[in-house]
Amino acid sequence: MIGRLNHVAIAVRDISAASALYRNTLGAQVSAPEALTDHGVTVVFITLPNTKIELLEPLGADSPIAKFLEKNPDGGIHHICYEVEDIAAARDRLIQTGARVLGAGEPKIGAHGKPVLFLHPKDFNGTLIELEQA
Amino acid sequence: MIGRLNHVAIAVRDISAASALYRNTLGAQVSAPEALTDHGVTVVFITLPNTKIELLEPLGADSPIAKFLEKNPDGGIHHICYEVEDIAAARDRLIQTGARVLGAGEPKIGAHGKPVLFLHPKDFNGTLIELEQA
Repeated sequence: MIGRLNHVAIAVRDISAASALYRNTLGAQVSAPEALTDHGVTVVFITLPNTKIELLEPLGADSPIAKFLEKNPDGGIHHICYEVEDIAAARDRLIQTGARVLGAGEPKIGAHGKPVLFLHPKDFNGTLIELEQA
Repeated sequence: MIGRLNHVAIAVRDISAASALYRNTLGAQVSAPEALTDHGVTVVFITLPNTKIELLEPLGADSPIAKFLEKNPDGGIHHICYEVEDIAAARDRLIQTGARVLGAGEPKIGAHGKPVLFLHPKDFNGTLIELEQA
């Protein structure tokens, strides 16, 4: 069912400093920051030859990553995103096996403009998994 | 400097259960478990089209992931591994910028039989980064 690893998301406190670190110290290709107000994050994309890393900084009062940064003041890996061909079919299969889909269970339009779902970390080895319809 | 994302490593308590989850629930291609006594882990490789996920279960008393699982009883993403062409050159560049390389700073032979180094999470947004000479 799962296909490519679409991205690894890393929550950071200071996206300018984190961008400079990836650009200068690690020598990676780093995009300009983009404010995604609907998603409560500012995002930077790091393009690797086979996948991408997303740096996320909280944006606004209700950012979905604010709590994570309270618990992890240095930042940390927030989630990984796997691609699926058909997100509704993936959701149905997951629910049948007893896995919990976060929220109301309906795919939402994610930061890339594609339907996404998040799975409960307790059901997946403490890992927050995003599924994105590729 | 950094190239492909070689793998994402997820620490788990029960590698059989985690393998079944990835194989059956997530429909991924999952290898048989392999005991790496020198590295203190049992490992399972999940092959995705563009990269791999490694599930790690502690092996032996001095497993490098035992402490992580004490802090994260459900498991969690332990590290990410980026490929570099020349690990000695990468290390020298990192040390010049003030980034800390874990251990004595000399590359060791990692779980894939290739030279690796680990970077200090405090210097990289709370993310444990492994560099592997590809």
